[in-house]
Amino acid sequence: MEITNPHTKPVRVGSLEFGGPSFAVIAGPCSIESLEQCSQTADAVKKSGAVMLRGGMFKLRTNPETFQGMGSDAFSIVREVKAKTGLPFVSEITDPRQISDFIGLVDMFQVGSRNMHNYALLKELGQVQTPVMLKRGFSGLISEWLHSAEYLVKHGNPNVVLCERGIRTFETATRNTFDLNAIAFVKQNSHFPVIADPSHATGATSLVTPMALAAAAAGADGLIIEVHPNPAVALSDGFQALTPDLFESLMNRLERVLKALDRPLAKPLT
Amino acid sequence: MEITNPHTKPVRVGSLEFGGPSFAVIAGPCSIESLEQCSQTADAVKKSGAVMLRGGMFKLRTNPETFQGMGSDAFSIVREVKAKTGLPFVSEITDPRQISDFIGLVDMFQVGSRNMHNYALLKELGQVQTPVMLKRGFSGLISEWLHSAEYLVKHGNPNVVLCERGIRTFETATRNTFDLNAIAFVKQNSHFPVIADPSHATGATSLVTPMALAAAAAGADGLIIEVHPNPAVALSDGFQALTPDLFESLMNRLERVLKALDRPLAKPLT
Amino acid sequence: MEITNPHTKPVRVGSLEFGGPSFAVIAGPCSIESLEQCSQTADAVKKSGAVMLRGGMFKLRTNPETFQGMGSDAFSIVREVKAKTGLPFVSEITDPRQISDFIGLVDMFQVGSRNMHNYALLKELGQVQTPVMLKRGFSGLISEWLHSAEYLVKHGNPNVVLCERGIRTFETATRNTFDLNAIAFVKQNSHFPVIADPSHATGATSLVTPMALAAAAAGADGLIIEVHPNPAVALSDGFQALTPDLFESLMNRLERVLKALDRPLAKPLT
Amino acid sequence: MEITNPHTKPVRVGSLEFGGPSFAVIAGPCSIESLEQCSQTADAVKKSGAVMLRGGMFKLRTNPETFQGMGSDAFSIVREVKAKTGLPFVSEITDPRQISDFIGLVDMFQVGSRNMHNYALLKELGQVQTPVMLKRGFSGLISEWLHSAEYLVKHGNPNVVLCERGIRTFETATRNTFDLNAIAFVKQNSHFPVIADPSHATGATSLVTPMALAAAAAGADGLIIEVHPNPAVALSDGFQALTPDLFESLMNRLERVLKALDRPLAKPLT
Repeated sequence: MEITNPHTKPVRVGSLEFGGPSFAVIAGPCSIESLEQCSQTADAVKKSGAVMLRGGMFKLRTNPETFQGMGSDAFSIVREVKAKTGLPFVSEITDPRQISDFIGLVDMFQVGSRNMHNYALLKELGQVQTPVMLKRGFSGLISEWLHSAEYLVKHGNPNVVLCERGIRTFETATRNTFDLNAIAFVKQNSHFPVIADPSHATGATSLVTPMALAAAAAGADGLIIEVHPNPAVALSDGFQALTPDLFESLMNRLERVLKALDRPLAKPLT
Repeated sequence: MEITNPHTKPVRVGSLEFGGPSFAVIAGPCSIESLEQCSQTADAVKKSGAVMLRGGMFKLRTNPETFQGMGSDAFSIVREVKAKTGLPFVSEITDPRQISDFIGLVDMFQVGSRNMHNYALLKELGQVQTPVMLKRGFSGLISEWLHSAEYLVKHGNPNVVLCERGIRTFETATRNTFDLNAIAFVKQNSHFPVIADPSHATGATSLVTPMALAAAAAGADGLIIEVHPNPAVALSDGFQALTPDLFESLMNRLERVLKALDRPLAKPLT
Repeated sequence: MEITNPHTKPVRVGSLEFGGPSFAVIAGPCSIESLEQCSQTADAVKKSGAVMLRGGMFKLRTNPETFQGMGSDAFSIVREVKAKTGLPFVSEITDPRQISDFIGLVDMFQVGSRNMHNYALLKELGQVQTPVMLKRGFSGLISEWLHSAEYLVKHGNPNVVLCERGIRTFETATRNTFDLNAIAFVKQNSHFPVIADPSHATGATSLVTPMALAAAAAGADGLIIEVHPNPAVALSDGFQALTPDLFESLMNRLERVLKALDRPLAKPLT
Repeated sequence: MEITNPHTKPVRVGSLEFGGPSFAVIAGPCSIESLEQCSQTADAVKKSGAVMLRGGMFKLRTNPETFQGMGSDAFSIVREVKAKTGLPFVSEITDPRQISDFIGLVDMFQVGSRNMHNYALLKELGQVQTPVMLKRGFSGLISEWLHSAEYLVKHGNPNVVLCERGIRTFETATRNTFDLNAIAFVKQNSHFPVIADPSHATGATSLVTPMALAAAAAGADGLIIEVHPNPAVALSDGFQALTPDLFESLMNRLERVLKALDRPLAKPLT
């Protein structure tokens, strides 16, 4: 690995910064399901301190018979919620041909775990300047993850934020194994900011809060958390979503832990 | 898994058949490097009994600084070698936008290990009738592999040949762990033909022959083998390539084992 | 790894040999349950060509509430069945203090998968001359397995037969992932004979036969197979046992494959 | 799993408590090497707030040619250092026949990762009342770990403290993958206290401090940390040891994080 700069180079997303002194929390639904659901969630997470909105439009699902996301029908919902809340937005891109549609709509592209090795996609995202959140492949070596980041950088886009979201191991009591070692390792051995996704990494609502705090303590620069107004009826991954109340409680505990780590929580936009 | 038909449905590739009574061997270079290299390899493997040619044009490489394949410069080479040898051809597709270029050039699309979860690609390959060789993701569950095959079937293309190529585990003495259990399991629990790639599954020339025989004994319907006229100078993966001589020796041993399994080797085209 | 002798040094067990020209099959019940069950199984497997008997007396079970084996109550059963059939016997030792009881009763000690790293046990088994079948730990690296064999050799017992029995990976469709690469690798990189246990490696009766043939083709020197007269009522692991009929059928198919590999099946004792 | 009591039952070790309101830190050398090294380390870690001493006497090493520990020669060193510092002591037991020697010398038995499945050892440790720190096997499922704890409880010893020390996965950038999910899971699904070993879980001095903080945030009840006065000359695992200075700095940061979690650090003995 050639990337060994011990000093993280922050990546800006509008007025936000990942990898700088403050700690940024992204939150929102796994999938955008309706204007009401998206808007309600965005209002709630903003109130509790989230500074960016997440929400899936094109979903990669193992089983072809399950909900595949609203697709382009979600575009107008996103525009309306962004306008109302002022929150920047991140969403997963699954095909290079979606790039032009996403420009202007997303403030950060998400490359999902299944696409960490999709070099065709990475090469094209290297040609835009919109930041990219690059999730670690669920079986990606740390060295491969950094090489995938280099694909983006080499093709012209240095605005890469890494995201650890759990890896596949023999353990099945949790959905994935949350590799927090990888966060501490990447902070020491690369210049990329790195955030953590405790929702996918645990796959269980009850584990999200302790593991979010653990990720912060391990040195993550931020979090991305799934929140749903009513997880029991979510169209995808409700078993790992926080309710708005649980999210608020998490943010309160997180702020205390961050203070003990001498790190402020990024302030909500005004 | 809904797919539990115990009787394999053969898939035809021109006059060839995968999953029928006879056992088909695909061979050729990891990457096409030149007309001479491709032609020489094709002649050699045909002479020893291979009934289909493989050869990478667009390569997915972890490190962005390594050889990425000849790309479309290989098209004319492939046309010339196919015309001369009469061998059908399989090659990896890495982007849905390559489909139109590949139609007519390849007789079977290869979806590589890194793209087993690339549902955007699978959905579009579901809309053609050219057969697809679907490699198992290096960390793909068998159930996920069968779901990926269903993406192809559901979108209209039932001509799917599975290929086991080794999985990622804790063991590092070999490049991958060759999961031959998966071959026996898939034969008993799905109707898809399944072949094996002992070159990637072992990552070592010396292990290819015994593991090719083992795959046949486990019930595979065929093999895909990397052969290079001079592995020491190969531009990719020379460490796992067979020389034409080693390939000939493998084919001789394979024919004897297949006979003991009451299975003929598919005959070279006339 | 210092052990790189490419020529396997055979290990003798009475008049039998592991790692020589012929291929030896061990068979018997997972656990010895009664004189009748053990005797009936021994007669059946001998008739079909097994040349050694297996049978658990002290069982290592994950759950403390499950059957832990007959323990020393099985000793007299073993003596009677050995006397009647003339088959040599292998059984798992789980505690160094059992060694004196086992001497004379077993013709080969089995060190089970959970004890590959139990160096206290290995050091003491190094001080006897009775051969040891050393199963690979279900998460043991090949290099660690060879180091464990060296513990035996270094302490004075060179009579080590390795046994691949499957490793723990992310795949859950089969009980373990059968690492047949490891067999080919060990044959090329150590002088120890190596046999395969397709019963544990697959954990499913229907997969045992194809994977037994695959192990032979990969270069194994023998097999160890679980057989039970009535798997449905077995006290342990019935889901992976063969009936005597299935075992006979396996032996017939195996003999044909071995012939194609120029390897005779070790003859039943007279 | 039958053990689902959500309320951790604390385990007492002398005047110390694991799993109660306060957080306990164990520290000391990987191996005891000499009176001077052990005494110097004990003084240093006590001064910085450790409340218990660790130190290996019988070492389980993969390679039979490496340092295997001082064995019983370390007993008098341990007695002297305990008398001087008043620190309780934990050390790994590798053979049931060591129990009588260890009684009175250790205040807690350590069952190491390689012995989590050594039920012969667990059954006998179930017959004493000295607490047992049960490390998770490096490939042990959480359910198997809890079953191993049940072996101790069922045989009469309820004083079990679990210890997560990293699992074996495909990732090789770190020595192990630290499964902090397991800590949060076990706290919610069993009544056993659980501590964390960031030294083995990372295998790198530079990663120990962030991951120790992360373990505390995930909900661990304590830590066990390797400290050596001069890691460069350590006879085992120096690459993961902290110097006394680094340990002091860790303890200062830990105390702040624990405060944010409303948890006091267990006080040094008076």
